[in-house]
Amino acid sequence: MENILETIIEKNRYLVNKGKVADYIPALAEANPNYIGICLMDMEGNIYKAGDYDKKFTIQSISKVISLMLAIMDNGEEKVFNKVDYEPTDEPFNSFYKLDLPHSIKPSNPMINAGAIVATSLIKGSGEEKFNRLLNLIRKITENPNITYNEEIYLSEKDTGDKNRAMAYLMKNMGIIEGNVEAILDSYFKQCAIEVDCLDIAKIGLFLANRCRVLNSETSLCDENISSIITAIMTTSGMYNFSGEYAVKVGIPSKSGVAGGILATVPKKMGIGLFCPALDQYGNSIVGYGIMKDLSKELKLSIF
Amino acid sequence: MENILETIIEKNRYLVNKGKVADYIPALAEANPNYIGICLMDMEGNIYKAGDYDKKFTIQSISKVISLMLAIMDNGEEKVFNKVDYEPTDEPFNSFYKLDLPHSIKPSNPMINAGAIVATSLIKGSGEEKFNRLLNLIRKITENPNITYNEEIYLSEKDTGDKNRAMAYLMKNMGIIEGNVEAILDSYFKQCAIEVDCLDIAKIGLFLANRCRVLNSETSLCDENISSIITAIMTTSGMYNFSGEYAVKVGIPSKSGVAGGILATVPKKMGIGLFCPALDQYGNSIVGYGIMKDLSKELKLSIF
Amino acid sequence: MENILETIIEKNRYLVNKGKVADYIPALAEANPNYIGICLMDMEGNIYKAGDYDKKFTIQSISKVISLMLAIMDNGEEKVFNKVDYEPTDEPFNSFYKLDLPHSIKPSNPMINAGAIVATSLIKGSGEEKFNRLLNLIRKITENPNITYNEEIYLSEKDTGDKNRAMAYLMKNMGIIEGNVEAILDSYFKQCAIEVDCLDIAKIGLFLANRCRVLNSETSLCDENISSIITAIMTTSGMYNFSGEYAVKVGIPSKSGVAGGILATVPKKMGIGLFCPALDQYGNSIVGYGIMKDLSKELKLSIF
Amino acid sequence: MENILETIIEKNRYLVNKGKVADYIPALAEANPNYIGICLMDMEGNIYKAGDYDKKFTIQSISKVISLMLAIMDNGEEKVFNKVDYEPTDEPFNSFYKLDLPHSIKPSNPMINAGAIVATSLIKGSGEEKFNRLLNLIRKITENPNITYNEEIYLSEKDTGDKNRAMAYLMKNMGIIEGNVEAILDSYFKQCAIEVDCLDIAKIGLFLANRCRVLNSETSLCDENISSIITAIMTTSGMYNFSGEYAVKVGIPSKSGVAGGILATVPKKMGIGLFCPALDQYGNSIVGYGIMKDLSKELKLSIF
Repeated sequence: MENILETIIEKNRYLVNKGKVADYIPALAEANPNYIGICLMDMEGNIYKAGDYDKKFTIQSISKVISLMLAIMDNGEEKVFNKVDYEPTDEPFNSFYKLDLPHSIKPSNPMINAGAIVATSLIKGSGEEKFNRLLNLIRKITENPNITYNEEIYLSEKDTGDKNRAMAYLMKNMGIIEGNVEAILDSYFKQCAIEVDCLDIAKIGLFLANRCRVLNSETSLCDENISSIITAIMTTSGMYNFSGEYAVKVGIPSKSGVAGGILATVPKKMGIGLFCPALDQYGNSIVGYGIMKDLSKELKLSIF
Repeated sequence: MENILETIIEKNRYLVNKGKVADYIPALAEANPNYIGICLMDMEGNIYKAGDYDKKFTIQSISKVISLMLAIMDNGEEKVFNKVDYEPTDEPFNSFYKLDLPHSIKPSNPMINAGAIVATSLIKGSGEEKFNRLLNLIRKITENPNITYNEEIYLSEKDTGDKNRAMAYLMKNMGIIEGNVEAILDSYFKQCAIEVDCLDIAKIGLFLANRCRVLNSETSLCDENISSIITAIMTTSGMYNFSGEYAVKVGIPSKSGVAGGILATVPKKMGIGLFCPALDQYGNSIVGYGIMKDLSKELKLSIF
Repeated sequence: MENILETIIEKNRYLVNKGKVADYIPALAEANPNYIGICLMDMEGNIYKAGDYDKKFTIQSISKVISLMLAIMDNGEEKVFNKVDYEPTDEPFNSFYKLDLPHSIKPSNPMINAGAIVATSLIKGSGEEKFNRLLNLIRKITENPNITYNEEIYLSEKDTGDKNRAMAYLMKNMGIIEGNVEAILDSYFKQCAIEVDCLDIAKIGLFLANRCRVLNSETSLCDENISSIITAIMTTSGMYNFSGEYAVKVGIPSKSGVAGGILATVPKKMGIGLFCPALDQYGNSIVGYGIMKDLSKELKLSIF
Repeated sequence: MENILETIIEKNRYLVNKGKVADYIPALAEANPNYIGICLMDMEGNIYKAGDYDKKFTIQSISKVISLMLAIMDNGEEKVFNKVDYEPTDEPFNSFYKLDLPHSIKPSNPMINAGAIVATSLIKGSGEEKFNRLLNLIRKITENPNITYNEEIYLSEKDTGDKNRAMAYLMKNMGIIEGNVEAILDSYFKQCAIEVDCLDIAKIGLFLANRCRVLNSETSLCDENISSIITAIMTTSGMYNFSGEYAVKVGIPSKSGVAGGILATVPKKMGIGLFCPALDQYGNSIVGYGIMKDLSKELKLSIF
């Protein structure tokens, strides 16, 4: 299997030059675009790794999966989706013009920035508590107590996060989010700056594939139904406004992050963690997409 | 099984009064909202029916699945998706304002009206030939040579179809569709007026589930990969701007029509045809949605 | 005075190269971009001409002033503005996306294409009659019975007018326009193809400046209040989404056409007709704008 | 003259019940809707007053005229309009969705909130200095050194101003505004809370009518050309997305405020200050509009 992974990595390496590392904050702009790492973990607990699987990167938007999970655990599905819709959108991840149209009532889904900020706002606790509870949940899911956040990247995100700030204040004005906006944003910026590696991400994927259970654990961390909710939303919205094409070409529920990570989950089968910083125009890892396409075909992982 | 179906039908019958029959043309407005029919067909060829499964209804937007299939058969995936995107949208099925925004290049997906008109425009042949080839394909898939279209409904659609006309002329102006707009629309209105029953629809679902093969047939009607494309697009966009919530609550690739039909396909397992005319605000059968939710749980059909 | 006009023409001639002749139909694309003509007519009947004042050009969107006038004469102000709003818009002349937003009820104003099509639809009579009545009104206002339309340009407009067709069908669907869409469009395309020269346009300007009276005529062609309505709308919307800047820089109620014409009216003082085919990005004559700026300053014509 | 004013006031008093006092902050919601005051001041220095002309009210959006004036005085016209456009819009005063569309570069005009925040950002000095300089300018124009701001209303505006905050952060993100967003907003909220009476407003109108000179003053406060710029912009955009209809029905350059004030200027003739708190759906004083219509007819003040 690891040979297959290595072959697929090399086959897609040329794509590095077709993408562009995120450059809206210095710490991301400095990422090495040549890093390509992947890790698979299946339901038997087998772990397969290749490339730069051990490099750390910030989780960024992949954290939206966790904040949604925690928001549902804290409030129930119905209350969460009163404040954010389930619907995929053909707009970019940081678009929010629709919220200012007269008939608008809530962000389209929890995988775009506006919807993810809503999810974070719904996590119980103060800004600090929201973040700590989310970090704690990630540590439990990954069985990795060392996971923490990158202070420099958090501060950079906070410093340059005026568009997220704009949408948060608009939603505050609309009554979609409650509480202190800056504290919510603080928690949101921190969650994006959590540092992980490919194995951590693969374990999150496996946790979802295993219906919200850590493999071989006796206790469930949350209602198993939450895995269906999140897997469905990852399928329709996880790759931003490329989710439709990704579903056709790859067919595996996935969520990307702007640092180049991809979380993928094959229901009842496998979790996948991928990392390569160069992005396409939608904000997804361009090499990651190429690898996922090949992996899906090679291992027949498409759900369609 | 048929007992289960009947129980689920009765459990959801109260929803009839929460929906509203389509009333934009007289022939649809006269539909009996109390009809509830369902038909399942599995890979072993077993057929299970309940309720008003033998009532005829017009296929309406379910035909978008067939026109997309034929457009891809005629042109290949790449050429089709140069003219219509793969992306789900949070806008209603007949919205097209985005096409008139400065950065717009094509409709979001082939399951909304604008995208479906593009697909029809790409089917080879004159307006008349486009329709005949599409009708012929449906007859082959359903093994039902008696299927034809309802002349009265076709003429009504044509007469009141000015919004579809508007989007078609805009797309002609943008270079997205070529050829005679009225001929393309004529074919489009006719395809919407094709009359089917629940078994016909179930067979379309099974054809997709069976990777584009009529069950027990030796010849494939088209490249099996087309089933993945269409199943993925049904999942992300098949229930209009309710597709995201439907994916969470039902988890079965489906396509609805405004006459109350629902086509559902469970990959490698089953095709489902449903019919109940009362619609929700999105244009989907409201009883059909209730039944699909229960069916998905009862038979564990969700792909997530 | 004619020396002043000639000086201003020469001062602005360099702008020819900064603009671009309309090229959406061949007959317009062939226009000579070096033609610059102007004609002023004051309340004493003095006529001042300079440059290529005797060249004929199609009236294009300047006809929107006449169709609005006739629609009000036929229906009264209230009925007309039930179907089209008074409001200037920051969108281009052929934009109509807002009409497809959920809260939309009518086009913003009668100087953009959608609103002008509404005005034409409200002129009494069949398509043929609408046009003949409008042509007749222009002949009376200009005292020029020889004015007619350019058949080739009319047919080209009709042939390539799919975007206008799109907005007309959408408005038909919304109940904003009634009757046969193609007949209304036919009249609209013909009115745009009416051929005039600078004196004709200056006389229209003077007619408005003189409160809807042909100079020295004893009979009024319409209610004098209509001149205020139209002059106000020309001020807020006459130069498309450049009207705001034009009001600041020129300060004279004006209406432009895509063939390069500009109609200007100085209330109680003067009518101006201008012609130079090269356009700016908004669809206004780029040389014409330069000349109007200088003329406004030189003759102190700004209303502000 | 004062008899005329009183007659017009009484004629329009019934409109009080057709409007609604602004209620987004408590201090405004408590306004007495029955107050109707008016003050005219002509170029000879004659002052005519009627009704509740001596009641104080907050200037609100009328301050946008002053902040634009000061921004131009500080930066020149060109630099200001690099950051905010001249164009009227058919969107409400607090709409900003267009700023988030891909092709957007700046707010439509300085009379909507987004554009006014840009103007405030361009006033030289820190947040505190911006405000003090603006207050000082108003004191000079009105020759009223006692004018100050209402602390309670300022704090309420600040507390509930999340939509303004949202657009400011978006514009910061887009590079349209620079500097500390909260300091700019602070100045903006304070300028809206400046308290004036009808005479103060009439004097601002007269200052503009007199080409930026305080009547009988020997020194000009700014370039006289600024009066044309502002008068033109008030005409095309001063009454929000009702400016087009207002131009047709009233024809006097005006600017309204949400506390019920209207500033009007008749070029070279007169300044008008009006006050009545009940608003129409656009945010303009509903009685004020009725009075302006009658006044324009009675005194033949329309510029069209």
